Amino acid sequence: MHTLNVELGSRGYPILIDAGLLGHAQSFARLAARDALIVSNTTVAPLYMAALRDSLGSRRVVEVILPDGEAHKTLANMARVIDVLVANRFARDCAVIALGGGVVGDLAGFAASCYQRGVAFVQVPTTLLAQVDSAVGGKTGVNHVGGKNLLGAFHQPALVVCDTSTLATLPSRELRAGLAEVIKYGLICDAALLGWLEEHLGQLLGKAPEALGHVILRSCQIKAEIVGRDEREQGERALLNLGHTFGHAVESATSYKEWLHGEAVGAGLSMAATMSRECGLISDEDAERVRRLIELAGLPTQVPTVTPDQMLEHMRIDKKVLGGRLRLVLLRRLGEAFVTADYPPEALARTLAAHCGEGAP
Amino acid sequence: MHTLNVELGSRGYPILIDAGLLGHAQSFARLAARDALIVSNTTVAPLYMAALRDSLGSRRVVEVILPDGEAHKTLANMARVIDVLVANRFARDCAVIALGGGVVGDLAGFAASCYQRGVAFVQVPTTLLAQVDSAVGGKTGVNHVGGKNLLGAFHQPALVVCDTSTLATLPSRELRAGLAEVIKYGLICDAALLGWLEEHLGQLLGKAPEALGHVILRSCQIKAEIVGRDEREQGERALLNLGHTFGHAVESATSYKEWLHGEAVGAGLSMAATMSRECGLISDEDAERVRRLIELAGLPTQVPTVTPDQMLEHMRIDKKVLGGRLRLVLLRRLGEAFVTADYPPEALARTLAAHCGEGAP
Repeated sequence: MHTLNVELGSRGYPILIDAGLLGHAQSFARLAARDALIVSNTTVAPLYMAALRDSLGSRRVVEVILPDGEAHKTLANMARVIDVLVANRFARDCAVIALGGGVVGDLAGFAASCYQRGVAFVQVPTTLLAQVDSAVGGKTGVNHVGGKNLLGAFHQPALVVCDTSTLATLPSRELRAGLAEVIKYGLICDAALLGWLEEHLGQLLGKAPEALGHVILRSCQIKAEIVGRDEREQGERALLNLGHTFGHAVESATSYKEWLHGEAVGAGLSMAATMSRECGLISDEDAERVRRLIELAGLPTQVPTVTPDQMLEHMRIDKKVLGGRLRLVLLRRLGEAFVTADYPPEALARTLAAHCGEGAP
Repeated sequence: MHTLNVELGSRGYPILIDAGLLGHAQSFARLAARDALIVSNTTVAPLYMAALRDSLGSRRVVEVILPDGEAHKTLANMARVIDVLVANRFARDCAVIALGGGVVGDLAGFAASCYQRGVAFVQVPTTLLAQVDSAVGGKTGVNHVGGKNLLGAFHQPALVVCDTSTLATLPSRELRAGLAEVIKYGLICDAALLGWLEEHLGQLLGKAPEALGHVILRSCQIKAEIVGRDEREQGERALLNLGHTFGHAVESATSYKEWLHGEAVGAGLSMAATMSRECGLISDEDAERVRRLIELAGLPTQVPTVTPDQMLEHMRIDKKVLGGRLRLVLLRRLGEAFVTADYPPEALARTLAAHCGEGAP
């Protein structure tokens, strides 16, 4: 088993990574709570709920099972979780456990942050995307019809239990979506990881456990280090949003119904590479290399059903708008990203024109 | 003008206290935000909105006016504030300003804490209760049908502008409600304040500016010190809940419709005194002295429409339940409070029997 620590003083916590962790009571030994609420969804609960309940031993366990999908990451469903906590008289010393992917983790974490002004929270991520990214770092929240993750809180988990054997049941579309975030880590700070991905993409798509274990561990290392240095995104952490301003606009423009988050990030990374080339930062060859890697991972690079104007409209409400200017994460080279509001508007227009389409049919 | 500072490092902020502050642009000089959303209610907005808007100068200002009253401190109204922020494309560098009493402040502060995972928040309290208590300390939240303030966040304001001249328009029922929190400060840590209150209650009820100024300043001093030492209620801050476990149960048992928060706290303080006497902590004379002071302030000490069983049911979901035990704040003497879960259940039963009634007619 690998144990990584997110170093945040009194809010620090371990990330446990190994096959089979979910089925071991020992994985949850550090959880003091007597009462636990497990939040999951209709896809994941039938697969792993029983094992997780067993591992929680004599604790009182209550479940909330949400419909599956980004469209259900709403304030209304967060309120439903709160209603169950209240109805069962859960006290401030309870724990909320997210069993599922990023949607379940973000929503359950937000509920945990709000209930009684904050109760303990445990992430048990079951998708590649959640294991490499969303389960670590304490960003929680729900979507608003006007924009992605517009309501939320920073609320660090007390524990992340990353059971890599859950990926055996992950649909390949979800696996590819998770790879988008791994490619992101390579682009922002680890050129060696990019090269490794290009060589091992076949093994990853074939779910070879060793290859998956490598990217999960490396991704969690990178994320834990960045979050440890900048918990609340005052600076460096914003780099983790590479491709996300574009991606979030794709998701909200399509009402969170057509795209998986990771797919939108894939297209967004491709747009960020194009934009970096349009700004004269990276070469045509490097932009093409990014595009090819995203395509090889089976991810989209084009967004035919959203127009450039729709993209701009949805990008205007992005959380990185400051002083009326939209800041973007761009690439200085492959393996080095930076945040800037200083770019030619024409470069953005050309980027969107190159990747977007005619709108919904 | 008095300026008190809440010492919380990078989250520290000033409390400005003086007559007329709301009408001076200078009061808001430290507010960097270009865009401001003012949250107020139908009672306060007609009185002070225009003056506040003037003081905000060239900033873009948008308003949300809520219905007045504790029954409207709901998640649905918090969501309404978020909808307005999104509809107006407010960015993370905006500010949310609460103009009103505790309901407006708690709800607006919770919206500010959630929107884009946290934007700047300014308190402009216009009731005595908000000026002496709820505007300071960063507790935000909304009620749940199952219990008071069950959803919320710790989100410190960036600034508290306490304009004492707004009390001129405050209904006397609201003024009395605010006095409950002042009496609370005396009971938990300032016996001298208790004696001062007994001597000056007539002046306070007659809205003598000097007397009001004295209790506002002293109350903010006490609260700022306690919050500075224990921001997130790991210890000492729980003392500020004296009377509140009883009071919150009164409020939620009556669906937040009959009682002002301060009235429920008044009755709750009286119950806490009775309970302290029943536990052999304070004398009959001291308990009687507390009861008399609350009555002289024009506050209720009895709760005829709620039964003891209903009280117990609503107290079970209190945020101070830990390890299945309800902790209570009790008095060791007048001017010294402590938190304990170690009390005879019969003492609680006798206390509730002495103060509660037959239930709703």
